[in-house]
Amino acid sequence: MRSIRIPHPHVGLALRDKHFVTALLAEFLGVLLFQLLAGSIEHGPVETATAFAAIMYFVGPLSGGHLNPMVSLAGAATGHIDLVRGLCYAVVQILGAIMGAILQVWLISDFSFGAASDSCVAPPKHVSGPQLWGWEFLLAFFFLAVMYSSVFVAPGHGGAAPLAAGLALLAALSTGGFYTGGSPLNPARLFANMVVFRCDVAWGWTYLAAHLAAIGAAVAWVWPVHGLGMFMGGPRPDSFTGTANTLGGSSLTDPFLAGTTGSSGGPTSGTGGGGGGGG
Amino acid sequence: MRSIRIPHPHVGLALRDKHFVTALLAEFLGVLLFQLLAGSIEHGPVETATAFAAIMYFVGPLSGGHLNPMVSLAGAATGHIDLVRGLCYAVVQILGAIMGAILQVWLISDFSFGAASDSCVAPPKHVSGPQLWGWEFLLAFFFLAVMYSSVFVAPGHGGAAPLAAGLALLAALSTGGFYTGGSPLNPARLFANMVVFRCDVAWGWTYLAAHLAAIGAAVAWVWPVHGLGMFMGGPRPDSFTGTANTLGGSSLTDPFLAGTTGSSGGPTSGTGGGGGGGG
Amino acid sequence: MRSIRIPHPHVGLALRDKHFVTALLAEFLGVLLFQLLAGSIEHGPVETATAFAAIMYFVGPLSGGHLNPMVSLAGAATGHIDLVRGLCYAVVQILGAIMGAILQVWLISDFSFGAASDSCVAPPKHVSGPQLWGWEFLLAFFFLAVMYSSVFVAPGHGGAAPLAAGLALLAALSTGGFYTGGSPLNPARLFANMVVFRCDVAWGWTYLAAHLAAIGAAVAWVWPVHGLGMFMGGPRPDSFTGTANTLGGSSLTDPFLAGTTGSSGGPTSGTGGGGGGGG
Amino acid sequence: MRSIRIPHPHVGLALRDKHFVTALLAEFLGVLLFQLLAGSIEHGPVETATAFAAIMYFVGPLSGGHLNPMVSLAGAATGHIDLVRGLCYAVVQILGAIMGAILQVWLISDFSFGAASDSCVAPPKHVSGPQLWGWEFLLAFFFLAVMYSSVFVAPGHGGAAPLAAGLALLAALSTGGFYTGGSPLNPARLFANMVVFRCDVAWGWTYLAAHLAAIGAAVAWVWPVHGLGMFMGGPRPDSFTGTANTLGGSSLTDPFLAGTTGSSGGPTSGTGGGGGGGG
Repeated sequence: MRSIRIPHPHVGLALRDKHFVTALLAEFLGVLLFQLLAGSIEHGPVETATAFAAIMYFVGPLSGGHLNPMVSLAGAATGHIDLVRGLCYAVVQILGAIMGAILQVWLISDFSFGAASDSCVAPPKHVSGPQLWGWEFLLAFFFLAVMYSSVFVAPGHGGAAPLAAGLALLAALSTGGFYTGGSPLNPARLFANMVVFRCDVAWGWTYLAAHLAAIGAAVAWVWPVHGLGMFMGGPRPDSFTGTANTLGGSSLTDPFLAGTTGSSGGPTSGTGGGGGGGG
Repeated sequence: MRSIRIPHPHVGLALRDKHFVTALLAEFLGVLLFQLLAGSIEHGPVETATAFAAIMYFVGPLSGGHLNPMVSLAGAATGHIDLVRGLCYAVVQILGAIMGAILQVWLISDFSFGAASDSCVAPPKHVSGPQLWGWEFLLAFFFLAVMYSSVFVAPGHGGAAPLAAGLALLAALSTGGFYTGGSPLNPARLFANMVVFRCDVAWGWTYLAAHLAAIGAAVAWVWPVHGLGMFMGGPRPDSFTGTANTLGGSSLTDPFLAGTTGSSGGPTSGTGGGGGGGG
Repeated sequence: MRSIRIPHPHVGLALRDKHFVTALLAEFLGVLLFQLLAGSIEHGPVETATAFAAIMYFVGPLSGGHLNPMVSLAGAATGHIDLVRGLCYAVVQILGAIMGAILQVWLISDFSFGAASDSCVAPPKHVSGPQLWGWEFLLAFFFLAVMYSSVFVAPGHGGAAPLAAGLALLAALSTGGFYTGGSPLNPARLFANMVVFRCDVAWGWTYLAAHLAAIGAAVAWVWPVHGLGMFMGGPRPDSFTGTANTLGGSSLTDPFLAGTTGSSGGPTSGTGGGGGGGG
Repeated sequence: MRSIRIPHPHVGLALRDKHFVTALLAEFLGVLLFQLLAGSIEHGPVETATAFAAIMYFVGPLSGGHLNPMVSLAGAATGHIDLVRGLCYAVVQILGAIMGAILQVWLISDFSFGAASDSCVAPPKHVSGPQLWGWEFLLAFFFLAVMYSSVFVAPGHGGAAPLAAGLALLAALSTGGFYTGGSPLNPARLFANMVVFRCDVAWGWTYLAAHLAAIGAAVAWVWPVHGLGMFMGGPRPDSFTGTANTLGGSSLTDPFLAGTTGSSGGPTSGTGGGGGGGG
């Protein structure tokens, strides 16, 4: 493994890059729409998952389609995006969710500033504090793991990535969501609830602590398994370009075959073909 | 940015082009089926979304699969299709919806000319006029944004484009649809209701004004972010042909990497790799 | 257009071809499973559509995944498959559905020979005969149209073809199915009901007549729009091989651009890029 | 057909292969999550299917995404993976399910060791023993058949493979699941129920016998139809690499055309283009 190189890019420089600003606008608008759509009804897993997937189809080509501070911060922590991008994404995502919640107050008669709304999340009574934390942690880790294989680690899932993300949210919310009060696994949404509706404050920190732990667990899993990203000395994803389609098209069929190609090892010397190696 | 060149094609010439006529027939038949299927039951988001996606799989290879005057007019306004095509599409889409509504009168005992039917849309009582306008505007803009990334802006979402469109409709109708009375975000459907069932007349112009504003907002978003289309001096989508698969297959994983390839900028000089540039 | 050449292949010869026999076995087993799964519960659109799509993922690589005599016969009528294949498929599909129904009698306590079962389809009382015929005809034509763009006409929808077929069934059954009694748009299923459960006999011929008319309408639509298939002088689908991915990956984004490439026509001389041309 | 060569790889050697260990960890974690999510609610087909598909998007690039001892053992029996891999996968899958069930006891107040829980499966009263066996056998064979075409046999379904697997589970559980008590068709889940919750013991062996028979039936089907895998003398999947995309992109449109390309046979000498041949 190469030595890890932490990039120190310059924020001011980045903001003069048109494409970086576009990506920030896309993330802002995306999370705004996510809060506006999925937060306007009670916590239906189907509505949350379809809104996330559809918005990811919208902003994916512009920003990568994170739509979640957990995803951006984890991606920065493992070097799959650079630190400035990760932090800026997280900030605009939170601002987007807050702006979405403000729009909700204007657009929905039942919503008002400082009063609990349908967007609020409350842990159910039959779940203890550690159980709430454990569920939220495991669900968040699961969601992060699917996002890593979808958008960060080459070859990704291509045009199916938003479907994978939506399915992960649907699976998590329609099962474990029963024990977390339907939390959408999204710190930005949580902050918006805290700031605009003044709800989720009491339990919000339990959720946030679980999210933070999930980022840590994702890093601990991704580092040895997939290797660090290009911003920490890992391989560039576009080094896959020549064969990206091949791997993308059949990555699920031959992960254990790549290693045997021209390998002197035995037939069991399989390799995580889709993983991109440990650098 | 190059100077904008408005094309002035000749309608009579276009109608002698077999493939253009085929595209018009496909849009006519597609919206007819959309009205017939999704308009025959009360405004179920799932039925509307699956009908739209399935019909888009049918007509997509023939006409691009717009199935919505908003989409065609917005595409023409940003130069992603030419003006004649956009206007002709909008006309046949409206005619298709009207013919679908006429077929419904024959095929469904409960439907009759000039009487409100299950296809009619009524804003719910708990929503004020500006709120109705605001919801319809935001949902329509959201739908247009997903359609742009799916069918207009290279590399698009390929075979997943109808899924993206269907997910967008499902997300919009199952959440915000509660506040718009289940409006299918489609002016053609609205005109058919007005003409055949004489409903939606009172509120119809609110919806249509919101649709028009959404087209304007989509143009204002697409112009700086994606650049104008080839009919207004933008790059040709098939200039992506050489690497279309690569970008199509992994566009969601590396939008911020394209800019660093052979770039002298820092690691944050990302670029909207899927966006097609600003011309 | 080249002159039409009707192939006269030899059935006995075909049956000595291992791959042809495999395809027949796959269609037999596929429709058997479709009857067994979707016919064991009352006519749920979701169950019917998911069963069809999943089975199509199973048999698609072996037989093309028709699973419906309408599809096979229409494909043969337009020359997209040869006549012997179309007829043999239809026969084994019907036999498969009958065998599936026989298995149901053994596997489900409530089912017995000659008695109406959950698999039976009955037109609802609120629908007249011509209305039933009209709905079944339009839904069947819609389903055939989606199947053409998915499996017959290059470039098809690739790995998304079963999703397209499932969405078409879901859209048709969850809307128009209310007026056809939930008919699965499949003559093989209908014959199995007639033979094994002795139901659907009175109304069955209305359904079958609608299916036959839908085949005719599909041929009348496909011939001028897509052109005939390779078995009637049309282009070979694998003549797309060189660029199949490009077209497949972005066929929905540029159907109207192909015609302008190197074309001396105006910008409106678009072409149905996905259509395969009229020979 | 070449002579069959049974590989005798060395387990100890395999465990020193980082990528093999990663694959085992992925399968362990994947089945753990599957038990935790889908086993925490009563047997909802949608929840089971979405959890399976989403987890397959997570672990697919690492291990192939089997998540089911039936799949791994059948794949080993037909030579599509090697024997050591198949056996090790099965073991860690069962351990993962047991660990998931243990986590459930900690995370859900209603669950406790040795007491029946929502994860338990009970055959419904209206189904006899042979009927239960028959349903479970047919559903398991159907699921295995879809998994073969998705992950084992070239060209597979690429990024749509998890969707195919999820649709197969959804179709099976939402129809036949009514007659099997909602069994998730997964021996690992069954063992976890037996060990941790001490349920499913009386009927568990009926399920397991059906699973074993389904493996046998899948082998009997795959051997002549697709041919054995590379670990038993079959062709290497990556021998498809050059044209994998072409076949992957259009495999559903031209299975019967491959045989006619440059073939001297008649037009009916079709071939299972997606099958990979019998060696």
